[in-house]
Amino acid sequence: MKIPIIRDVLEESDALAKKNRERFEAEGIFVVNMMSSPGAGKTTLLERTISELKSKGLHCAVIEGDITSTIDSEKLAHLRIPIVQANTQPFGGDCHVGSHLVHAALDMLPLHELNYIFIENIGNLVCPAEFYLGEHLKVVVLSLPEGEDKPLKYPLMFRECTACLLNKIDLLPHLEVNVPLLNKNLVHANGELTVFPVSAKTGSGFPAWINWLESRRADAPKLFMHEHEHSH
Amino acid sequence: MKIPIIRDVLEESDALAKKNRERFEAEGIFVVNMMSSPGAGKTTLLERTISELKSKGLHCAVIEGDITSTIDSEKLAHLRIPIVQANTQPFGGDCHVGSHLVHAALDMLPLHELNYIFIENIGNLVCPAEFYLGEHLKVVVLSLPEGEDKPLKYPLMFRECTACLLNKIDLLPHLEVNVPLLNKNLVHANGELTVFPVSAKTGSGFPAWINWLESRRADAPKLFMHEHEHSH
Repeated sequence: MKIPIIRDVLEESDALAKKNRERFEAEGIFVVNMMSSPGAGKTTLLERTISELKSKGLHCAVIEGDITSTIDSEKLAHLRIPIVQANTQPFGGDCHVGSHLVHAALDMLPLHELNYIFIENIGNLVCPAEFYLGEHLKVVVLSLPEGEDKPLKYPLMFRECTACLLNKIDLLPHLEVNVPLLNKNLVHANGELTVFPVSAKTGSGFPAWINWLESRRADAPKLFMHEHEHSH
Repeated sequence: MKIPIIRDVLEESDALAKKNRERFEAEGIFVVNMMSSPGAGKTTLLERTISELKSKGLHCAVIEGDITSTIDSEKLAHLRIPIVQANTQPFGGDCHVGSHLVHAALDMLPLHELNYIFIENIGNLVCPAEFYLGEHLKVVVLSLPEGEDKPLKYPLMFRECTACLLNKIDLLPHLEVNVPLLNKNLVHANGELTVFPVSAKTGSGFPAWINWLESRRADAPKLFMHEHEHSH
C-alpha cells in the first residue's frame, strides 16, 4: 500500500531555489542574500556596497524583500540600477523572502548584464535563515546597538551565514556593548564566520568587505564562461 | 456531504489563549506581551519596569520566550521574582511564543501571589504579532537606532499593539533618526497607539510608562474580586 504524501513546503521551496541557482550560473551572476533584524542597516549597507562595486565597473541589481511598502527601493533608486520590489503581503505577509519570489523577480531583471544580485531579505533574525533561495552567499548584518548576545539567541542565522557585517561601529563610544564578548559569541555560534566591523554611515571597514566579496565572486565555481565577464 | 476540515492551527492557538485568559481573570493577574526586534532592549526595559513595580509593592513574574539559551532569564534573576524560561527550540524553533507555551508556564508560577505577568516574546517584528496569547496588553518596543520607517514596514505589529515604548532615546544625539517622521509613521500605522519615549538605560520616561501601565491594570475588567488585590 502506498501512503500519499503532501509534498513538503520546504522541498518545493528548495526545488525552485535550485532552478534559480541554475539561472545564476547560466548568466554568471553572483548572488548574495542579506539578512538581519529590522533596522540593522541592510539598505544603507547595500547603498554603499553597490556604489563601490559600480565604481569598479561592476553591474548590480537588487531584489528588495519587504512585507509591504517600497521605502527601501526608493532609497536605492538614485543608484540607477535594476531593482525589483518583492512584497510578501500578497502572499500572506510572509516573514521571509521565498524562492518563488526570487524566481518571479528574475524575469524582471536584465540578467545578461549583471555581475551581482543582492537580495535584501525581510528584517527578521529567525525565519529567513531557514530558506535557501539559490544564492552563493548568505550574509548576516548585526548592528552594535543590538547587543552582544544575538549569536547565542538566534544561532541558526549565524550558523547558516558565511559572513557577518558588524554594522554601526561608529556608535561604539556611545554604547555599553562588550565587543570581545560579542566576538566570542560569534565564534561560538559559527567558528567559520568571517566578521567585518563596518559603518555604512562613515564607510569604515568597507575596503576589506568589498575585497572579500570580490574574491568570493572570483572563487565561485564557474560552470559556464560568460561573455559579460570580460566585457566590463 | 460533509467535507472534513483539519482544524486550523490559529484556531487551536486561540482556544488555548482564551483558556489562559480565563486563568488570568480568575487569579486577578494583568498580563503584558512585550514584542520587538532582536536587540531593541526588552529585557533591560523589563528589568527596570519590574523594579519600579516592586517598589510599589506589586508582585511580578516573567515568562521569558527565546528560541534557545537562558541569557535573559539570568539577566533578570537578581530581581528574585518567579521566571519561567520558555524555549521554542524543542517545538521546532518557533519564531514566536505560542499560547501553548504560556499555558504550560502557568503551572510553574505562583499565580495567586501575582499582580503582573510579563511575557517577553522572541525578538521578531513579524510573526509574534499574529498570535494572541490571552494577554491584556500587547506592547511593542522600538529602539531609535532601528530608524523611522519600521511602523510602515511592519504594520501588523504596530496595528496590533496598544502602546509603543520608543527605547534608547539616550542615543538620540548620536543618530540621524528623524523623530517627527517616526512619530508620523507611528500614527499612520496606528492612530490609537500610545507612545512612550524612554531609556531603559537612564530611566528617562519611566514614570509616565509605569503610571499608564498601572492605570491600564486598574481599568481592566474585573470579573472576580481577588484577595491579593487588597493585601499589598
